[in-house]
Amino acid sequence: MRPHVVLFGDSITEQSFKPDEWGAALANTYTRKVDVVVRGYGGYNSRWALFLLQTLLVGYSNPPVAVTIFFGANDAALLGRTSERQHVPVEEYKENIRKIVRHFKELSPTMLVVIITPPPIDEEGRNEYARSLYGDKARELSERTNEVTGVYAKQCIELAKELGVYSINLWSKMQETEGWQKKFLSDGLHLTAEGNAVVHGEVVRVFSKGGLDATQMPSDYPHHSEIDPKNLENSFLERSCKTEL
Amino acid sequence: MRPHVVLFGDSITEQSFKPDEWGAALANTYTRKVDVVVRGYGGYNSRWALFLLQTLLVGYSNPPVAVTIFFGANDAALLGRTSERQHVPVEEYKENIRKIVRHFKELSPTMLVVIITPPPIDEEGRNEYARSLYGDKARELSERTNEVTGVYAKQCIELAKELGVYSINLWSKMQETEGWQKKFLSDGLHLTAEGNAVVHGEVVRVFSKGGLDATQMPSDYPHHSEIDPKNLENSFLERSCKTEL
Repeated sequence: MRPHVVLFGDSITEQSFKPDEWGAALANTYTRKVDVVVRGYGGYNSRWALFLLQTLLVGYSNPPVAVTIFFGANDAALLGRTSERQHVPVEEYKENIRKIVRHFKELSPTMLVVIITPPPIDEEGRNEYARSLYGDKARELSERTNEVTGVYAKQCIELAKELGVYSINLWSKMQETEGWQKKFLSDGLHLTAEGNAVVHGEVVRVFSKGGLDATQMPSDYPHHSEIDPKNLENSFLERSCKTEL
Repeated sequence: MRPHVVLFGDSITEQSFKPDEWGAALANTYTRKVDVVVRGYGGYNSRWALFLLQTLLVGYSNPPVAVTIFFGANDAALLGRTSERQHVPVEEYKENIRKIVRHFKELSPTMLVVIITPPPIDEEGRNEYARSLYGDKARELSERTNEVTGVYAKQCIELAKELGVYSINLWSKMQETEGWQKKFLSDGLHLTAEGNAVVHGEVVRVFSKGGLDATQMPSDYPHHSEIDPKNLENSFLERSCKTEL
């Protein structure tokens, strides 16, 4: 049986199967080894995400072997600005992510859980994006700031340490590269192709560290070159036996 | 519960989650509506594919709502040339595809089954590709011809009519466009980004005709703008009720 991993998060997860995006790239990295199941919900914060947990994976008879939990970009929207309906206080955010981790660990204690922090915010990029949509009517103050999003990112890292699960500090990692504002972010928040490559690279690195190294995992059936056309039964039978061992 | 569709085929299916490829594009078209499960096996012919059927979807508690069956490019490899081990006689090919269709229809009689013909072959493209790999040692005669692959494609269409299932005549469709050899094929057989766009467009068209129109299907949870932050329980409860109706 081919295992599956779940990508649970907001728009950055929902969009991850567009060309050059990290979800599709991950599915390609794990081709014939792991199914990648996308559960991304644009605009969602961690509070709303809690309502999805019980029905998120109905139809899958086994729990996933890994999950990425990638919320926070919306929780960190500022009170008193245009996206305040999405705001979740940082203490509650941390507790919500804790509940999400607990839910997945209850499904399977051996599940590889990876908390991903929100990416950094380029406030100027957000403002340019708002002006491109609304012209002079655009709000003057960005609905998110990099500093506040950083506070949320810090909670992810602390929580991952507390719970002994993996984390990816995307907020810090991206800012290590000069010009990250335009290089990795398309509108000050969502990811460019290069930004997606960072997420893909980090997820593959952490999955590999956690025991899901695509280069070491068996493919689900024999490679075509291993098939003996004169002895098909054995070609497929041997493989099933090997897999069962 | 979110339904799933299965893409069952050879390398053109296996590679379909690379950037700009048709599987990832399909997953993006059906985001939050349908899970796309890839079961592509590079180099496989329809004879070898039969050995996978019984274990192909272990772990999924329900049958898929749709399947694409996309074999034939390897079956049509010519006897007496370099890929002859993959060759399957055309009468057997048709019977193998019939068995595959029957298998899926037995899982669920309402399943939307789509047989996709192999793409056309650009023999000169195949030879260029062989020379790029083996230089002067490359074989002089293409291991596939467009004419023979066309005979296999014809069987797909006939079979689909016999069985009353959908089909996509990729072999014919691509050849309607001038310069299809380089426009749609990267090595005389596999697909360019534009070739992938043709497959994506055709699959979406046929899925829509068969009742899986992404623009008409409900998303699996409310859109974030429909969530009432002051009445979360109701926002999510109402939606579940609607979905059950």
